[in-house]
Amino acid sequence: MSVNIRRLSSKQADFSKQMNDLLSWESVSDDAVNGRVLEIIKAIRERGDAALVEYSQKFDRVSAKSMADLTFDKARIQEALHRISPEQRKGLELSAERIRLYHEHQKQESWRYTEADGTILGQKITPLDRVGLYVPGGKASYPSSVLMNAVPAKVAGVQEVVMVVPTPDDEVNDIVLAAAAVAGVDRVFAVGGAQAVAALAYGTETVPPVDKIVGPGNIYVATAKRHVFGKVGIDMIAGPSEILVVCDGGTNPDWVAMDLFSQAEHDEDAQAILICEDAAFIDQVEASINKLLPTMEREKIIRTSLEARGALIHVGSKEEALEVANIVAPEHLELSVADPESWLPGIRHAGAIFMGRYTAESIGDYCAGPNHVLPTSGTARYSSPLGVYDFQKRSSIIFCSENGAAELGKTASVLARGESLTAHARSAEYRMKK
Amino acid sequence: MSVNIRRLSSKQADFSKQMNDLLSWESVSDDAVNGRVLEIIKAIRERGDAALVEYSQKFDRVSAKSMADLTFDKARIQEALHRISPEQRKGLELSAERIRLYHEHQKQESWRYTEADGTILGQKITPLDRVGLYVPGGKASYPSSVLMNAVPAKVAGVQEVVMVVPTPDDEVNDIVLAAAAVAGVDRVFAVGGAQAVAALAYGTETVPPVDKIVGPGNIYVATAKRHVFGKVGIDMIAGPSEILVVCDGGTNPDWVAMDLFSQAEHDEDAQAILICEDAAFIDQVEASINKLLPTMEREKIIRTSLEARGALIHVGSKEEALEVANIVAPEHLELSVADPESWLPGIRHAGAIFMGRYTAESIGDYCAGPNHVLPTSGTARYSSPLGVYDFQKRSSIIFCSENGAAELGKTASVLARGESLTAHARSAEYRMKK
Repeated sequence: MSVNIRRLSSKQADFSKQMNDLLSWESVSDDAVNGRVLEIIKAIRERGDAALVEYSQKFDRVSAKSMADLTFDKARIQEALHRISPEQRKGLELSAERIRLYHEHQKQESWRYTEADGTILGQKITPLDRVGLYVPGGKASYPSSVLMNAVPAKVAGVQEVVMVVPTPDDEVNDIVLAAAAVAGVDRVFAVGGAQAVAALAYGTETVPPVDKIVGPGNIYVATAKRHVFGKVGIDMIAGPSEILVVCDGGTNPDWVAMDLFSQAEHDEDAQAILICEDAAFIDQVEASINKLLPTMEREKIIRTSLEARGALIHVGSKEEALEVANIVAPEHLELSVADPESWLPGIRHAGAIFMGRYTAESIGDYCAGPNHVLPTSGTARYSSPLGVYDFQKRSSIIFCSENGAAELGKTASVLARGESLTAHARSAEYRMKK
Repeated sequence: MSVNIRRLSSKQADFSKQMNDLLSWESVSDDAVNGRVLEIIKAIRERGDAALVEYSQKFDRVSAKSMADLTFDKARIQEALHRISPEQRKGLELSAERIRLYHEHQKQESWRYTEADGTILGQKITPLDRVGLYVPGGKASYPSSVLMNAVPAKVAGVQEVVMVVPTPDDEVNDIVLAAAAVAGVDRVFAVGGAQAVAALAYGTETVPPVDKIVGPGNIYVATAKRHVFGKVGIDMIAGPSEILVVCDGGTNPDWVAMDLFSQAEHDEDAQAILICEDAAFIDQVEASINKLLPTMEREKIIRTSLEARGALIHVGSKEEALEVANIVAPEHLELSVADPESWLPGIRHAGAIFMGRYTAESIGDYCAGPNHVLPTSGTARYSSPLGVYDFQKRSSIIFCSENGAAELGKTASVLARGESLTAHARSAEYRMKK
């Protein structure tokens, strides 16, 4: 049965309405979920470890009797490196090393400058003290996500990275533990769900409270992160994964089809879109989709995703292609064209840009170096890939000389009095020369 | 009547509980407010300008009949520069120029590097397209906030800064409009409240939709910002203002008292704390507080704030002072000491650090250059002052050479198959040399 993927053309009169429909995505906030999550957070704040163990017994069906049973000690984490295949270990180590090298470029340093009167201004950059990393259990448990979240934190200089990963039915994922070892994660607890998020935010007798929580999770985890935001920092709440392939018609259509599949296979809500000026090439890609789909392990997920949210879009020009790409502001953008550098200046919004025919999006997911935690659902219009900057923070530095204080005091005094803030004005005036 | 400000000592057995009580602050989320805000957002999304005008008539009691009446054109904005005093204009211009000079240092540039096999990796930095700036009306309307929010956006390269400021009872604040002119704000609408936030997030016939909304506001504005987050970016939701003064006992106690007042006068919930090793000096500051308070215009607000949330804390050593300062993680930290540079390395968490006896916090509020939009309520543990980086975003760049794709494909293939993501693996394998 051929895939029923929608075809759009920028020539259609209702093209912009069609695009709106295609891109519309609102995450639903469910009162029932909110209520359960708030109850869990309350229980963890009030009863700490006891509640954490109870929820793990209930939701993850673990045999553990105490937090000691739900704690991986350093030896067990290191042991995981020997429980996976040497090939997998090498893959993790190579990937971690490339991620580290790339992210070193993002590290920001403190800076300051001195003005003529001796006043010093600047910014002091410091790492966060302690970060919590949520890793989902079961089939959505991705060791690559451990590397992508933990390595930038360590590059930033975070002293302690605390990972939580549930072990449903006592099943331990050794590749995930091995990834934690490779990334230098400091502590690992076998807990998950909203209860793990609450424990990281507020701390329990065993789990230390962190300053920021990062990492993906299901609706309970995402809802809990929203609720503890403010008490701790959080990373973005990710929507479904997306890819937008812009092709000039010169790439092997099988490659393009497989690139679309590589997002569509994530889940039924994932979005895979092709933009091309060449209608005949779009036909070829559609043929490749129909030819290759039956050979895919995740055929059903891919089909549902492509039929529900996929699109093949025909445009009239390179300018139109760029315009549509910027409207989509995709998480992953492949410029599968002969001269991607000539396209780059026109791209304003994208999480990650994969340039040229040889740069498969999946290389970026694992080992190119850049982060695979990227803004989704058009949020690339205002946000960025996860990076070292998410684990550093800044403090302004102001050090006035006597002359500087006297001079700046005049302006502060005028503006403060204009805002009727007299204490502000008088505080500045005290430092003005008599 | 003398001020009843609490005195704490690190020697007390229950000191850490006392500190917890002192610092506890949770913003209440009110169902009634949430309900009204959601209703307003819905109305703006459905009825656009018409709803925006109606709410402005109802809540701000404006005489306007249409959005044309609620739009300041360029001429009116420029005119404001002539309606304020020359001294105020000079103050705004000097302040804006210093803010611009400081923030130029924060501007980030795209970067890339090329690996041995020709693979290019990097990050492309772009400004946000369009930003919305909320400015409160009435007495909380601070022209300095216009500068602090708009200037960094313009330094980042934001094409269009759209400001909203309500005009309750048709009253226009010319200093605020003048600040908009000085900061290069592009468009100004005389609307406010949740309806203005909704208009900026979703757009109406007249108000263009923005990519991020920044600026302070009351509980309705803050709640609306929380609800539109995701559709657009938002800045932090600020809590009450705070100052922590660390003094070695060598500063004029009147200065210290006035510095504490300068935060306390903001509102009853503001927090002003002094830390000192010298108990006798703490007595002197308390005497100055009692002496100076009756001379303050905002005496009542300052007294309420100091009695409800203020504290004079005696500590046993410099190390203890630093430890307490890091626990507070204050918005404003004054190091009112002889050698502030020797203290700086020990400070891990603070929004802005004011070094030495001459650096009044209020200078930072207006004209030193650094931003006065700072993390509050201990969020300096994980967040930063508003800056140019809040108006820029990053896109990862990955451009594999043929050889790079072949080599990296091996690792991607192993790791993808480890995660059962076959399309990911095959997409990478297509690019591996046969």
